[in-house]
Amino acid sequence: MADAPTRVVFIGAGPGVADLITVRGARRLAEAEVVLFDALTDPALRDLAPQARWVDVGKRGFGHATGQAAINALLVDEAGRHAHVVRLKGGDPSVFGRLEEEMLALQAAGIGYEVVPGVTSALAAAADTQRPLTRRGSGRSVSLTTAMTHLGLLQATRTADTEVFYMAGRQLAALADKLREAGWAGDTPVCVVSRAGWPDARTSEHSVATLAQATALHADRPAVVTVGAGATAVAGKTRAKTPSLERHQAGPGDPTA
Amino acid sequence: MADAPTRVVFIGAGPGVADLITVRGARRLAEAEVVLFDALTDPALRDLAPQARWVDVGKRGFGHATGQAAINALLVDEAGRHAHVVRLKGGDPSVFGRLEEEMLALQAAGIGYEVVPGVTSALAAAADTQRPLTRRGSGRSVSLTTAMTHLGLLQATRTADTEVFYMAGRQLAALADKLREAGWAGDTPVCVVSRAGWPDARTSEHSVATLAQATALHADRPAVVTVGAGATAVAGKTRAKTPSLERHQAGPGDPTA
Repeated sequence: MADAPTRVVFIGAGPGVADLITVRGARRLAEAEVVLFDALTDPALRDLAPQARWVDVGKRGFGHATGQAAINALLVDEAGRHAHVVRLKGGDPSVFGRLEEEMLALQAAGIGYEVVPGVTSALAAAADTQRPLTRRGSGRSVSLTTAMTHLGLLQATRTADTEVFYMAGRQLAALADKLREAGWAGDTPVCVVSRAGWPDARTSEHSVATLAQATALHADRPAVVTVGAGATAVAGKTRAKTPSLERHQAGPGDPTA
Repeated sequence: MADAPTRVVFIGAGPGVADLITVRGARRLAEAEVVLFDALTDPALRDLAPQARWVDVGKRGFGHATGQAAINALLVDEAGRHAHVVRLKGGDPSVFGRLEEEMLALQAAGIGYEVVPGVTSALAAAADTQRPLTRRGSGRSVSLTTAMTHLGLLQATRTADTEVFYMAGRQLAALADKLREAGWAGDTPVCVVSRAGWPDARTSEHSVATLAQATALHADRPAVVTVGAGATAVAGKTRAKTPSLERHQAGPGDPTA
């Protein structure tokens, strides 16, 4: 709301380790009196706002309506008592971040807010695996989709050259079936990255036909699943195209740490 | 390439002002000896690497094949002479960043690289306009698409609940026609943001039927065009749905600057 003073800053923390937040996000955090954060955000981010009171409002995937209502109420309450409230979200707040619901609650209470964007998981996964989501000639469009609807239904589509499915980690076998139904060929390349951007990020490559084999490797870890043009290794022409070539990737070293 | 020492770091600068780069990106820049940058990246980023030699390899939109070949050759040449070369790209390198071509050139030369993700323009536009790209119930998928193919053809699709078109700024009237052809209704909301994330970002809202009116407002400015669920203001239910409600948005203030 442009007409109310800003009391809440929605910040995208990025998907992984604390250093994938933006410089602007880090600066806003340093001013916070209260930070409402999700379970998936890196605990190391606390070092950016040691002065603030940190409140865990985490819920993984799609939480209960009551859970979201409680978060909305808490956000309004804190903003009524503090001028610098940060709502820290994993990834980017505008992509699968439930931002709309929290904005509406603040609007109803006449509280102004700002949004600081972040790196969404699909981009971190592409960086980790060194597989660009767009490719010249073969990859002109990228779709970011939830595999799970808010009603708990599993869905898959085939609409873009590269499709990235969020929140699919628990149902990779079922997702593979849905991908086949949506028209993806069995030998379409698929890349799975869990905890993208983190030092313990784990990546594996498959085909649609063998995607179910990724289940154990990524169990109980938030994962994104990339299907199509962007799932292929850039060196693919010279590498054996073995499905299920598991690759546990170490995080990029940080020589400045 | 995991088996060659890293000499090149691809960094997504984010779409706008220097403070939308990630903390990791800023740290890698501080180590650079040479930085190859595009015209669209913020000149203020130079303050993060004053020790480096900055080389402008900029080209807007899809450049000539010769232009890309020259960039590839320069990248390989610099990496042969320096251990810390940064290739700084606007937005995120994995999304419409021509990353594949440059990776292949480095691979052929046996040079290792790392990718640091960034905030892509669609996310910055959503933050600027406070319009989340996903919405509960109505916005389950987001597509990022180039309006222009590498052959210079204008295309549009209707595959996701929210579609964001990159590199469409020069042909908004033609894009409107293509959107109609692709099946979008004339009253579908459309939001245009040029120079997303910058202090002089400019936003306007339209419908598919009135999109052509945005042409003059965003002329000669890099723009992203958001169509569908994510183009609607979150306060939309209480606002008049006037097409072409132009809104020149000031950049978010930075109280720490």
